[in-house]
Amino acid sequence: MARIGFIGLGNMGAPMVKNLLKAGHELAVFDVSKKAMDKVVPDGASPSSSAKQCAQGAEFVISMLPAGQHVYDLYLGKNKLMEIISEHKNALVIDCSTIEADVAQKVAKFAKGLKVGFVDCPVSGGVGGAVSGNLAFMVGGTKIDYNRVKPVLECMGKNIFYAGKSGAGQIAKACNNMLLGIVMAGTSEVLNMGMRNGMDPLVLSEIIKKSTGQNWAVEVYNPVPGIMKNVPSANSYKGGFQVDLMLKDLGLAMELCKNSLTPAPLGSQALSLYALHKNKGFGKLDFSSIFELYAENRTTK
Amino acid sequence: MARIGFIGLGNMGAPMVKNLLKAGHELAVFDVSKKAMDKVVPDGASPSSSAKQCAQGAEFVISMLPAGQHVYDLYLGKNKLMEIISEHKNALVIDCSTIEADVAQKVAKFAKGLKVGFVDCPVSGGVGGAVSGNLAFMVGGTKIDYNRVKPVLECMGKNIFYAGKSGAGQIAKACNNMLLGIVMAGTSEVLNMGMRNGMDPLVLSEIIKKSTGQNWAVEVYNPVPGIMKNVPSANSYKGGFQVDLMLKDLGLAMELCKNSLTPAPLGSQALSLYALHKNKGFGKLDFSSIFELYAENRTTK
Amino acid sequence: MARIGFIGLGNMGAPMVKNLLKAGHELAVFDVSKKAMDKVVPDGASPSSSAKQCAQGAEFVISMLPAGQHVYDLYLGKNKLMEIISEHKNALVIDCSTIEADVAQKVAKFAKGLKVGFVDCPVSGGVGGAVSGNLAFMVGGTKIDYNRVKPVLECMGKNIFYAGKSGAGQIAKACNNMLLGIVMAGTSEVLNMGMRNGMDPLVLSEIIKKSTGQNWAVEVYNPVPGIMKNVPSANSYKGGFQVDLMLKDLGLAMELCKNSLTPAPLGSQALSLYALHKNKGFGKLDFSSIFELYAENRTTK
Amino acid sequence: MARIGFIGLGNMGAPMVKNLLKAGHELAVFDVSKKAMDKVVPDGASPSSSAKQCAQGAEFVISMLPAGQHVYDLYLGKNKLMEIISEHKNALVIDCSTIEADVAQKVAKFAKGLKVGFVDCPVSGGVGGAVSGNLAFMVGGTKIDYNRVKPVLECMGKNIFYAGKSGAGQIAKACNNMLLGIVMAGTSEVLNMGMRNGMDPLVLSEIIKKSTGQNWAVEVYNPVPGIMKNVPSANSYKGGFQVDLMLKDLGLAMELCKNSLTPAPLGSQALSLYALHKNKGFGKLDFSSIFELYAENRTTK
Repeated sequence: MARIGFIGLGNMGAPMVKNLLKAGHELAVFDVSKKAMDKVVPDGASPSSSAKQCAQGAEFVISMLPAGQHVYDLYLGKNKLMEIISEHKNALVIDCSTIEADVAQKVAKFAKGLKVGFVDCPVSGGVGGAVSGNLAFMVGGTKIDYNRVKPVLECMGKNIFYAGKSGAGQIAKACNNMLLGIVMAGTSEVLNMGMRNGMDPLVLSEIIKKSTGQNWAVEVYNPVPGIMKNVPSANSYKGGFQVDLMLKDLGLAMELCKNSLTPAPLGSQALSLYALHKNKGFGKLDFSSIFELYAENRTTK
Repeated sequence: MARIGFIGLGNMGAPMVKNLLKAGHELAVFDVSKKAMDKVVPDGASPSSSAKQCAQGAEFVISMLPAGQHVYDLYLGKNKLMEIISEHKNALVIDCSTIEADVAQKVAKFAKGLKVGFVDCPVSGGVGGAVSGNLAFMVGGTKIDYNRVKPVLECMGKNIFYAGKSGAGQIAKACNNMLLGIVMAGTSEVLNMGMRNGMDPLVLSEIIKKSTGQNWAVEVYNPVPGIMKNVPSANSYKGGFQVDLMLKDLGLAMELCKNSLTPAPLGSQALSLYALHKNKGFGKLDFSSIFELYAENRTTK
Repeated sequence: MARIGFIGLGNMGAPMVKNLLKAGHELAVFDVSKKAMDKVVPDGASPSSSAKQCAQGAEFVISMLPAGQHVYDLYLGKNKLMEIISEHKNALVIDCSTIEADVAQKVAKFAKGLKVGFVDCPVSGGVGGAVSGNLAFMVGGTKIDYNRVKPVLECMGKNIFYAGKSGAGQIAKACNNMLLGIVMAGTSEVLNMGMRNGMDPLVLSEIIKKSTGQNWAVEVYNPVPGIMKNVPSANSYKGGFQVDLMLKDLGLAMELCKNSLTPAPLGSQALSLYALHKNKGFGKLDFSSIFELYAENRTTK
Repeated sequence: MARIGFIGLGNMGAPMVKNLLKAGHELAVFDVSKKAMDKVVPDGASPSSSAKQCAQGAEFVISMLPAGQHVYDLYLGKNKLMEIISEHKNALVIDCSTIEADVAQKVAKFAKGLKVGFVDCPVSGGVGGAVSGNLAFMVGGTKIDYNRVKPVLECMGKNIFYAGKSGAGQIAKACNNMLLGIVMAGTSEVLNMGMRNGMDPLVLSEIIKKSTGQNWAVEVYNPVPGIMKNVPSANSYKGGFQVDLMLKDLGLAMELCKNSLTPAPLGSQALSLYALHKNKGFGKLDFSSIFELYAENRTTK
């Protein structure tokens, strides 16, 4: 079992740490919030007083942070964390944050200069997946490093994908989540269309599930309240994957499109819809609440 | 086994007839093209000289026609076909054409007045499904009529859905196919985006298949040439489900939206993309050729 | 001065009648609502007990009705109005309703068979233009009929356009109003974007008015409250041209696109935005209220 | 008359220099291309061996560069140009480049620290406007600096707008050009729609010009070949404002939207259309060539 330093104990990071501990790994953890660290101490994690202390002597350093700037500052910033990490021979950084592909590539290059391994390794599956150990990981980096991190990641998830060279993990995640944003909005759109024309959304969902419109949303994450249990639509769209996070991911996808001059008519349409929805105050709801944007409000002004 | 009159022997109708014959039914067939009838005669179908002759004495009359106007004219037009059909006690009309829900409802109402059963029953699965007997049927009508037509439809397909009352079959089909149009274009869009950023489309497809972006297109009908065998993208987008037909179905969906004042931002976006694609001369290709709209043309002007 | 029969005295029809009376014409009027007729009687109009009575003996019959079905039923329906009209030698029908181009063409053809002239002649300019006599008219029909109706129309408006043969008036109107829908939403979108980034919308509007973004909306119908006086945005979006009417016109434009297989990515996007707006209960507000769809709602849920 | 240092002598910069010279100003110029400098020497400009030499002793330093990175590097990069500029008391930098608002704000802040004035001052009007001295300028900075630069700018253009504080010039430009992108595509869309339904585009254009769809594109820059003389559509879409530049400006607008979480459904739709158009090899044509994306290609495959 390995000595792991884990930095960033938010809604995702904390349950990931617990699953690593369950698998027998030794974990030093750090978060700017002491409270966040306290939550994983009962499970056996050692709280650190700084990112430096957390990373010192670790074979793997895992980070799970909100944005590219945080990752860049953590590893390349003034605390010189990457140099501390490089003191451990064969140290390997696993960044699980969802960030810009080009930032990931810059950090990877910097790590390489110090002979530290680095994989960009964003996750899919949300808080539910993090808790149940069913996350998907999309790994960008060398094949050798992929093979080293795979057993570690398998403590937290089932599907560990090798996406390709440095940055490919982030690119794959952006592609998948842009498609998810399109499909969730599209599924909401057609279910609402069926309902407006008198169809039972449960019947329509069952038909689509077995037809060419089949997709993950209709299969396991139906956006219409009352169709499925144990999904956000059954719980006033609480929990799950927030509209704000979908907007973040669609923004990362648009960044990729802009840099590569790639047209994204449906992706940008999806972004507009989630932005209109957030605009009216729904940023903290689960992203399947986009169904509500389509639903008629009978209270007329 | 039943005496069936089958009207409309195009790319879909002909193989459907063959599967009904295989199952032991007795078939009289009619098409305005004698050549089309000739193709199913070796399988045991009896050609008719008119729709009237074809329908006379049939327990079930099945129609598979290009558009709502044809269906309306066939049953309500001057040849008074519905009256001929009504001479057979318990006759039941199964219209498998993909048409406007309100036209289906008008014909159903007219049939009811003559004590003839009527179900709207559009199919999903394309020519491939028609040939292999794997079509899906979405049935709108009474539950009693649904139960009567189910064994007949099972000779031609696996999934026989009860969508609800009259018109619901057409509504379900329009919903499913609008979603299909969105998902196929969305999948093409993200695969192209990944490729432009250096990813292998096969690797990206495998990741999406096991992630939240999962859908029918990426699963069994990948639009990028070279990823899958035995799909239109492997064959210069020949065969399959034409862009023109997708445009027809999206048009039917827009009609539903217009009549019910339902917003369809992604559905109308998909329609625009297929229309731009058709515009440049690609209406006869399989609809997964929408990938080509996204792909860069390096021959600059 | 001419003997005119005017049918349809809604928000538009009534002030049009008043301007015709002011110009010295003799008017028989009809509306299904007696109350609507009463409003123009003090100005000198003669109320009729039926459309027939109204049209009898008229040199010009003008109709201003809500939809194509009304126009079709009025002229081709069971009351045989067109035959009554044909009794007056040289009678000419001026349909000012905004309807489907193909319905206009059908009515024109029917009129021609009875040797009655017919022009489709939808208007632009709204209630304000109708009251002030500043409407624009887009005329479809023969050049000879256009020359005959021009002096009549000039009593109600300034710009009398000859759009082309039968139906062209409706096509021109659909084109213009689709562009108006796009431009009003686009202007709202950029003014909101400027405001979100700290700009004064008045300053931004003044700049756009003198730059390449210049358009009718920014010029005389600013959608942001507080920029202009005497526009709906200055009056809680009351009055003006309703969202519901914009949706009607965009629907007519989509019908044209569908029939001619023409892509309309921006027109259909505009339609989606107005439909989302109506969805939340704002169908009766002026269409410039689309600005509110973009504006942030700080009351979060 | 003032001593001006002008950096960046591309398609826009060169004619701007000529107009400043005509007005009697003394100009030192610099461009990385010696050839570019040679073109304005006959008009009286003094070529410089470096940006430093060009800026030294200038009362006004004007820059006209392709992107934000160039502006940032020029003024804040290792050659310490801003310090050289600050040696002249009351020196004022006028950056006419079209760049990110936040980059403009950073450079302005840096300039302020060295007591150098700075205005962001992007232009509108294209190469034609630069040559004829009819550019529009959108100025962001202090009102005092605006008043100082106004007479200088008036040598090159007519409309000198005070947009607001630092960055506001760029924001105003992004807003205007996003609207322009929408309006040009929208105008192309409706003219194509009218043509497909049999209308003469000249007649339709004349009607729109006098109706509510009126806008700059239909007024002076018609995208349909054959309607106007002396516009790019009359010359195979050569000259004018390239698709690539429109894409750049729409990208800057999207950046603003992303940073301010502002929905831009029409702006992003326009961007997608120009990106699809560029995709097929038309990036170097004038942006009104977007009409060609809509036009039907009768050569079918």
